[in-house]
Amino acid sequence: MSVTLQDVQTALERIKGYVHLTPLEQHQSLSDVSGAKLWFKSENKQKCGAFKARGAHHALANLTQEQLARGVATHSSGNHGAALALAARRFGTQAFVVMPSNAPMPKRQATLAYGATVIECEPTLAARETALLECVERTGAVFVPPYDHPDIIAGQGTLALEMLEQNSNLDVILVPVGGGGMLAGVSLAVKALRPEIKVIGVEPFGADDAKRSFLTGQHVLQHHPDTIADGLRTTLGALNFALIRDYTDDIVTVTDAQIIAAMKLYMTRAKALVEPSGIVGLAAVLADPDRFAGQQVGIVISGGNVDLEHPVWL
Amino acid sequence: MSVTLQDVQTALERIKGYVHLTPLEQHQSLSDVSGAKLWFKSENKQKCGAFKARGAHHALANLTQEQLARGVATHSSGNHGAALALAARRFGTQAFVVMPSNAPMPKRQATLAYGATVIECEPTLAARETALLECVERTGAVFVPPYDHPDIIAGQGTLALEMLEQNSNLDVILVPVGGGGMLAGVSLAVKALRPEIKVIGVEPFGADDAKRSFLTGQHVLQHHPDTIADGLRTTLGALNFALIRDYTDDIVTVTDAQIIAAMKLYMTRAKALVEPSGIVGLAAVLADPDRFAGQQVGIVISGGNVDLEHPVWL
Repeated sequence: MSVTLQDVQTALERIKGYVHLTPLEQHQSLSDVSGAKLWFKSENKQKCGAFKARGAHHALANLTQEQLARGVATHSSGNHGAALALAARRFGTQAFVVMPSNAPMPKRQATLAYGATVIECEPTLAARETALLECVERTGAVFVPPYDHPDIIAGQGTLALEMLEQNSNLDVILVPVGGGGMLAGVSLAVKALRPEIKVIGVEPFGADDAKRSFLTGQHVLQHHPDTIADGLRTTLGALNFALIRDYTDDIVTVTDAQIIAAMKLYMTRAKALVEPSGIVGLAAVLADPDRFAGQQVGIVISGGNVDLEHPVWL
Repeated sequence: MSVTLQDVQTALERIKGYVHLTPLEQHQSLSDVSGAKLWFKSENKQKCGAFKARGAHHALANLTQEQLARGVATHSSGNHGAALALAARRFGTQAFVVMPSNAPMPKRQATLAYGATVIECEPTLAARETALLECVERTGAVFVPPYDHPDIIAGQGTLALEMLEQNSNLDVILVPVGGGGMLAGVSLAVKALRPEIKVIGVEPFGADDAKRSFLTGQHVLQHHPDTIADGLRTTLGALNFALIRDYTDDIVTVTDAQIIAAMKLYMTRAKALVEPSGIVGLAAVLADPDRFAGQQVGIVISGGNVDLEHPVWL
């Protein structure tokens, strides 16, 4: 059940043509402010506006024709649902997406626009799992997990392979962590290829289950997330925890106020949209500049699907 | 006093290294919505976040050392002021910028951040000109006009040379028009090189002095602009009017509601910031899709300096 570098490399081959090779961008004025040399992996410019397109397309590429014919189902607060909906359309099948009632409207709309059936539920993990189980039993669709699955981990890890190709001089890579699929995939890929590069997970102070799990070695399963970063409220997955424990160097937290300040700064200087979950890496650098001073820092901008009608800072 | 293709070509040489060669980008989902093949000239990713960096750097590149030593001055509601401030810093001189009290805060802040002295005035053309005159008399600074000057026109026109290089198959180019410097420069350059390509100016319905001047042949000097597009409230310049009359194919208008709808659509799909003045080209295509159906349409996204604290649609 574990995941290897080979899996990530194979995933990259399989998703080519389905997802974008996103740019690794510099913004001089942001580097100037931070005191580090920043390289932004712009997954906000990925298909669906988030890195989730990688894992979803990879998972479907690995299904058999018989499985695809049954449809696919998942639960998601947003980006994985939209990504699965798009991937399902590309692979000629139907997606069923269980979404909590508090999912951001644009992510819900995108999921619908890609042709998925959205099933609304209460915003608890229990309600999501119950609704998903009902859906799978009723439709026969194949469950495609949002983060705690080898195909998803290998898919998200592909962005690390691109980053190492795009800049061979990175000292550290900062990765948002919610369910942990991306951090697990990036960590294992980087450590296999370039063990001297530090991989640091970043999560909101109000949803620090990954940090507590990482520090204590005990998987924190229950927590009550309180953060504007809607994509990072999910609980760390078990498979992901095992990989993160083995391959990640550190996990740090940032406050919602730091997230908002980093969002505004990035949007103003980079002229690009970023969602709260997507900017935690920059927030971490600005919160602890001494730690990163003078280094070549890769920051994964994981998504850009913001609700324009409800800016989080207003 | 007129401007030629040669001037624009020379300007492009002079500003190289000072400003970005901005990308000409496609966004498939926006093309799909419009029914045309859209190519976005992303001047929102230009230095200072707007095309104004081109004209300002070109103007200063043409000053003598003696002139530069005296400092430079202008009046501006925003982007030209910030651009002149940046150019002044690059050329080692001091900028004085007269800004109306209703200038958007981020543009004012950028102008200050680049080291300019900002002189606030009432938001009327008369007050701006009076304050500028006082400033020039007091400081001896050289006036660098915001739009109605050959160096500015040639500087802004450089983006057209890039567009024609980046895609040799454009059928039409849509250009925002406020003071008219960019439309004049683009029109003369395109008509000299590729006369079969249509150049269309786009302005807000509530600030349609350029359209009325163009249609009647009489330069409309007085108007009372009422539009959210703060960069397009300025009155058409006389030199610009003469060039636009000779080289521009048409001028169309869009309403503020159409501007807002186009802004939201572009930001959601392109994941990039755009200011109201910068999106009028896309608004024009969406307002009259039959006119552009199936064509290769170049759209100048002129700037991305939005006020995040005050989204125009809220």
